[in-house]
Amino acid sequence: MQKTTRVAVWGLGAMGGGICRAILDKPGLELVAAVDTHPEKVGRDVAEVVDLGGRTGVVVWRNAGEALASGRPDVVILATASFVSEVLGDVLTAIESGAHVVSIAEEMADAYAQHAGLAERMHQAALSRGVCVLGTGINPGFVLDLLIICLSGVCIHVDKVVARRVNDLSPFGPTVMRTQGVGLHPEEFQAGLARGTIVGHVGFPESISLIARALGWRLDRVEQRKEPIISTVRRQTRYVTVEPGQVAGCSHTASGYAGEEELIRLEHPQQVLPELAGVATGDYINVEGTPGIAMSIRPEIPGGLGTIAMAVNAVPLVMAAKPGLLTMIDLPLPRAIPGKR
Amino acid sequence: MQKTTRVAVWGLGAMGGGICRAILDKPGLELVAAVDTHPEKVGRDVAEVVDLGGRTGVVVWRNAGEALASGRPDVVILATASFVSEVLGDVLTAIESGAHVVSIAEEMADAYAQHAGLAERMHQAALSRGVCVLGTGINPGFVLDLLIICLSGVCIHVDKVVARRVNDLSPFGPTVMRTQGVGLHPEEFQAGLARGTIVGHVGFPESISLIARALGWRLDRVEQRKEPIISTVRRQTRYVTVEPGQVAGCSHTASGYAGEEELIRLEHPQQVLPELAGVATGDYINVEGTPGIAMSIRPEIPGGLGTIAMAVNAVPLVMAAKPGLLTMIDLPLPRAIPGKR
Repeated sequence: MQKTTRVAVWGLGAMGGGICRAILDKPGLELVAAVDTHPEKVGRDVAEVVDLGGRTGVVVWRNAGEALASGRPDVVILATASFVSEVLGDVLTAIESGAHVVSIAEEMADAYAQHAGLAERMHQAALSRGVCVLGTGINPGFVLDLLIICLSGVCIHVDKVVARRVNDLSPFGPTVMRTQGVGLHPEEFQAGLARGTIVGHVGFPESISLIARALGWRLDRVEQRKEPIISTVRRQTRYVTVEPGQVAGCSHTASGYAGEEELIRLEHPQQVLPELAGVATGDYINVEGTPGIAMSIRPEIPGGLGTIAMAVNAVPLVMAAKPGLLTMIDLPLPRAIPGKR
Repeated sequence: MQKTTRVAVWGLGAMGGGICRAILDKPGLELVAAVDTHPEKVGRDVAEVVDLGGRTGVVVWRNAGEALASGRPDVVILATASFVSEVLGDVLTAIESGAHVVSIAEEMADAYAQHAGLAERMHQAALSRGVCVLGTGINPGFVLDLLIICLSGVCIHVDKVVARRVNDLSPFGPTVMRTQGVGLHPEEFQAGLARGTIVGHVGFPESISLIARALGWRLDRVEQRKEPIISTVRRQTRYVTVEPGQVAGCSHTASGYAGEEELIRLEHPQQVLPELAGVATGDYINVEGTPGIAMSIRPEIPGGLGTIAMAVNAVPLVMAAKPGLLTMIDLPLPRAIPGKR
């Protein structure tokens, strides 16, 4: 009988909850610990916390060190925050417990891109414990980096990469509306950008770094631009109403340059109800080269389900990987692991 | 300074010639030997044989053992034939020389699928010399297997895979017209199928085996069907004219079943000038699951350029791989290696 892999989930929000549900559906995985600091979750059975029927026998711990000592996971999936500086301590705690780490923090997709010092610290800690640390997710982690790189494999030569992820923000709640500037007047949007309250997409420097490293390109700089998507039509969701002339979302673009030549351009216009303005959601990749490749996925790969899947499907990959801080381009390609039938 | 990888190319047809040209464009690769049995190629400078200007100083050898002993390649790219039984001896010769092997023989994409005994023999030989052997190509090797598997990585659960590669045979010459039955009357097509002269696509069992292994699916059987594509319009190419009622190509389909349930369906209708019948060329993948993914690449990835690229881009992957007989799903995802700028 094949041994199951023992997995802990740290952070039981929308992503961590979905990750728990997926793990409980996989015969090859065993959920052995769950961690969250929210007082309403601590001490309850994880099945209840993640809206599943029945009981798992796994209780939510507040103290991660105790949870990991008790559950002895092979792999910890960390689903708490977006930035390297926020997750560093948790990553080190998980490493210290002797477990491999899978993080869905956007910046962890390539921690070296913006935080070389902290990345090196995680790398050395992982090496010394003989475990590996991987950042993954749908984007960064797949759509605007890994999938582009994979498609480049059929090219004899690549001149430039242009890709675009067009999604619909309407399922999201007030926090996302605020950080994307939805429903504001254009001047309020500019003020929010200046204040830093409108953040757009997190992960462009990481995606560009991964693409450049995989393709052996040396870039001189990365530029990001955030612009309001001003609606010409009325758009109404459960959480927000956008009148014509108001902001329907944030068009966030990043470019990687070698000298003055733009080698990589990634576009991620995020807005509510783009179809009302005649914009089709989808993931679009153009690899310009020999041959040129024009790919589309329509509608776009859903961000939430995709991130949950990438995290869970990474478990067998990290179990077989070499120690250290890794990225998705260091591992065999991702694949769905079998569920219960 | 980074060391270059020494590469030999064995077989200088359309694919091998393109592979040589691509290698000569890559600063990280050095073409150190070339092998072909054609009397008009033996003894000439490879640049001349593969229609490049200038001279490489590498002469085409007839005897592979001598060529490999002289060139001492790190990697041999084998571009001679389609079937495991045809390339086995050459693979063993290359292994014996101490080089890694990249083969574009369709059946080598997963030699275990139909030739477990011969595959095991190659595996043991590779292990004993500490080298690896990899089969790759555009299809099998990428479109109807690797890309499907990669896309499944964003799925929490996969129920079924349906994919379709629609291409245009019109650039190809008389041999391909004959093996696909183009220009025949439907009854001649059926007779050709019965005689085995119409072969359709080579590689379906290998693609299905790779998908099933990657997704952890146990299949009970693979079924293949070949049917004539009967034209309703006149189609004329440089090599053939198809009148209405005649055969424009071969629609080749393969399905993988678990019990009576079809889990994988791969379709590869190959014909001349499909656009004249309102059929758009392209590569189409549907992963049915949670979430479902609908991908298209239009036009389709060109088969010749794609195979050349996959072979050359595999060189760094095999240099870093563990010994033995490998498949594309055992390695990090493919990526374009940098050329001269």
